[in-house]
Amino acid sequence: MRIAVLAGGIGGARFLRGVRAACPGDDITGIVNTGDDVTLHGLRICPDLDSVMYTLAGAHDAERGWGRQDESWRIMDEFKQYGAEPSWFALGDLDIATHLVRTRMLDAGYSLSDVTAALCQRWQPGIPLVPMSDERCETHVIVDLEGQRRAVHFQEWWVRYRAGLTAHGFVQVGVDDAKASAGALAALSSAEVVLVAPSNPVVSIGTILGVPGIREALAAGRAPVVGLSPIIGNAPVRGMADACLPVLGVEVSAEGVGRHYGARSSGGILDGWLVHDTDTATVPGVRVRAVPLLMTDDDATAAMVRTALELADARA
Amino acid sequence: MRIAVLAGGIGGARFLRGVRAACPGDDITGIVNTGDDVTLHGLRICPDLDSVMYTLAGAHDAERGWGRQDESWRIMDEFKQYGAEPSWFALGDLDIATHLVRTRMLDAGYSLSDVTAALCQRWQPGIPLVPMSDERCETHVIVDLEGQRRAVHFQEWWVRYRAGLTAHGFVQVGVDDAKASAGALAALSSAEVVLVAPSNPVVSIGTILGVPGIREALAAGRAPVVGLSPIIGNAPVRGMADACLPVLGVEVSAEGVGRHYGARSSGGILDGWLVHDTDTATVPGVRVRAVPLLMTDDDATAAMVRTALELADARA
Repeated sequence: MRIAVLAGGIGGARFLRGVRAACPGDDITGIVNTGDDVTLHGLRICPDLDSVMYTLAGAHDAERGWGRQDESWRIMDEFKQYGAEPSWFALGDLDIATHLVRTRMLDAGYSLSDVTAALCQRWQPGIPLVPMSDERCETHVIVDLEGQRRAVHFQEWWVRYRAGLTAHGFVQVGVDDAKASAGALAALSSAEVVLVAPSNPVVSIGTILGVPGIREALAAGRAPVVGLSPIIGNAPVRGMADACLPVLGVEVSAEGVGRHYGARSSGGILDGWLVHDTDTATVPGVRVRAVPLLMTDDDATAAMVRTALELADARA
Repeated sequence: MRIAVLAGGIGGARFLRGVRAACPGDDITGIVNTGDDVTLHGLRICPDLDSVMYTLAGAHDAERGWGRQDESWRIMDEFKQYGAEPSWFALGDLDIATHLVRTRMLDAGYSLSDVTAALCQRWQPGIPLVPMSDERCETHVIVDLEGQRRAVHFQEWWVRYRAGLTAHGFVQVGVDDAKASAGALAALSSAEVVLVAPSNPVVSIGTILGVPGIREALAAGRAPVVGLSPIIGNAPVRGMADACLPVLGVEVSAEGVGRHYGARSSGGILDGWLVHDTDTATVPGVRVRAVPLLMTDDDATAAMVRTALELADARA
């Protein structure tokens, strides 16, 4: 079976581990958000792609949630000694090696898709990973800062200010000149089912859907699309979706996110929607099922994936 | 007193420590070779500037001779895992931080002189350090490799092949478009004495002299120029000058190098020439003195410097 998965970073990474566990032998592609990507200290950093790659390879730091196991921070300490800003974005030494390899390849003219494939040669994630786009398409956040309304890079808002500055809106800088990557379009056009990971609906999944070509491919595809709610009760399982959804006027609930995504039959993206077993949701035109949605380990996540595939099959 | 010093890497660094020790309160400038500079893994690397900066700051690894104390090699190991070449040029983690800061500043449009001054803000070498030029002016070496005569970067010849490939010549790539840095010219024009460190006469001092403006500034300056021989007996004290001098038809001896530099009065650069106390040398037009020239510690080096200044004064 051909499965395409839309995924953000840490949540997307855990979800993809579950897909891999649930579907051995199937043809899975991870289409990963690159709206969080940022250039710092001259290094091109792709947090979501790296989280997914490291996590699928088992090389991630499970306790911290992001970055590499057995990481060290010597270069960051040197940056501080040099006064090289910013200092609010932690860069591990091992991680910097990845960024150096990527930056060099990008500077040499390779696409981000090519670079990602090259990095995955080492990590063997078991699932082909493709960026949503090869073009820069960065999420910026409209905030009030030092008395002025201005746009800051998503990472600055997320990491530096811990999403503590009220967001007045999200902007995808570069989106007008961006297009979906060939790998993303190929995966979506050949998919027999599309899964939407329980990632941030605004700055992960929403960003992927904002790339010209992605939403159209979902709408035009024959594959049913099943999403999983990242909201349990009235809070995100992890991350700060509760700081993002209200900006778009979306209720922080499984139903709110389901309705925000909307039914494919009426211009949205969903055929099926999984919510946590303590939640209920009514999404017009979308088949909803409630099951445990906590990704406590690969087995639990695989069970979620199997239910999502059943729901997709029921629709098909 | 205003003193300008032409210097290469490790030998130049030790020599500058001696100048600093011998001349407290004097106005010293180090004009450093950048012909060894190289871009690897997307990082702009200035081995001689860094050797001098680290050594003057006491942050160098005295045993290894180059790079930082307490260095680690995690990123290099990662590069190997990624198959990112070249692997023959060792890059320490702490050192990479320096290269990242430099590369980012250069990419932002700062000159190498500006970048060097910024890095020295942290290291406080006690002596202003200026690159010979702000332009790229890289030493390449003509060799026979895989049956073909070709030019390889100096670092490839020096580090990868340990100068084991016969050199047929040295080329300063970019020299036609290069000019001496403003800092180098200012130091030379205001100097009351110029010292030529016992660095490699071909690929360190020779490279500096090859930059348009340097040799002219020495010739036109009122300051006496005194050099120190890097050759003792018939071998370099360190490094591989014996693999370089014959390429230019220069005898590997203190006299050979002294004659190669030549008297300022006849188109060369020297007024005085210090050779080791076991050597003798006759260089027409140049006052020669023999004293111990082993830079075993800062005191020994400072004694050499004091003798060089006496020789300059005798000439003046």
